[in-house]
Amino acid sequence: MDTFIIRETTARDVPLILSFIRELADYEHLTVTADEDHLQRWLFEEKKAVALIGEFNGQAVGYAIYFYNFSSFTGRAGIYLEDVYVKPEYRGKGFGKTFLKKIARIAVEQGCGRMEWTCLDWNLTSIDFYTALGAQQMNEWLLFRLTGDKLIQAADA
Amino acid sequence: MDTFIIRETTARDVPLILSFIRELADYEHLTVTADEDHLQRWLFEEKKAVALIGEFNGQAVGYAIYFYNFSSFTGRAGIYLEDVYVKPEYRGKGFGKTFLKKIARIAVEQGCGRMEWTCLDWNLTSIDFYTALGAQQMNEWLLFRLTGDKLIQAADA
Repeated sequence: MDTFIIRETTARDVPLILSFIRELADYEHLTVTADEDHLQRWLFEEKKAVALIGEFNGQAVGYAIYFYNFSSFTGRAGIYLEDVYVKPEYRGKGFGKTFLKKIARIAVEQGCGRMEWTCLDWNLTSIDFYTALGAQQMNEWLLFRLTGDKLIQAADA
Repeated sequence: MDTFIIRETTARDVPLILSFIRELADYEHLTVTADEDHLQRWLFEEKKAVALIGEFNGQAVGYAIYFYNFSSFTGRAGIYLEDVYVKPEYRGKGFGKTFLKKIARIAVEQGCGRMEWTCLDWNLTSIDFYTALGAQQMNEWLLFRLTGDKLIQAADA
């Protein structure tokens, strides 16, 4: 019988996690600057985020990464889903939804009031999927980012 | 001589932090469900976010709350600025910018590659301020949220 399980990760999974991040970035037409040292430090030493691996019949076919955010208006932590990815050849089997359900359950069990994530505006398949799941699109909020030299300049200004 | 300092907080500051959160929510036309117990737990026991208070001549005039997020593509944590607020009667003195600089410096010192935040789309004064600071508006990312019953349904689906 086919089985799909979602398991936690350890530092030994860093190369696998990095390979999944690179696949997702290709799909999203984005660039990865992460390396194994970064993931080792921030995921497994500083523990700023949690990585999960999905295995279908014992083979790694997808991953998810989440971290805790915080909402001052609710006064509570929430879960922010940074990534969820299933290899193209394993899509259509409900694995992506299983990841989302698993992480929603973690949020509920820990008393988190929300689960949030972002999606690229051209990714209509995902947008439909999230909407069908009951997610609300928060269009009135604009995301700003300071990075690289601009961040250093702001710090020194 | 006038002095403005930014200080860290302890559990004794919970009532003050909550009063600031309520002021900010009024300004943003949003509703606060946070109470003191929530803030006590998530800020000072679970430590999912950090609150700072700004004092002008010894009087609390503003606050900021940030937490660590994580970018899989950079492999590094970043800082997410949940709130920054200065009481209306103390604006125009550069205190908001001092908060942003302080938190940008924390990001740089800790090796975080980014600082991010969101802003309501009608808040043009803030948008101009953030743009002048060098922040990039990430328009292609849409924010999704599951909350309340929808989150519980997703967990149980």
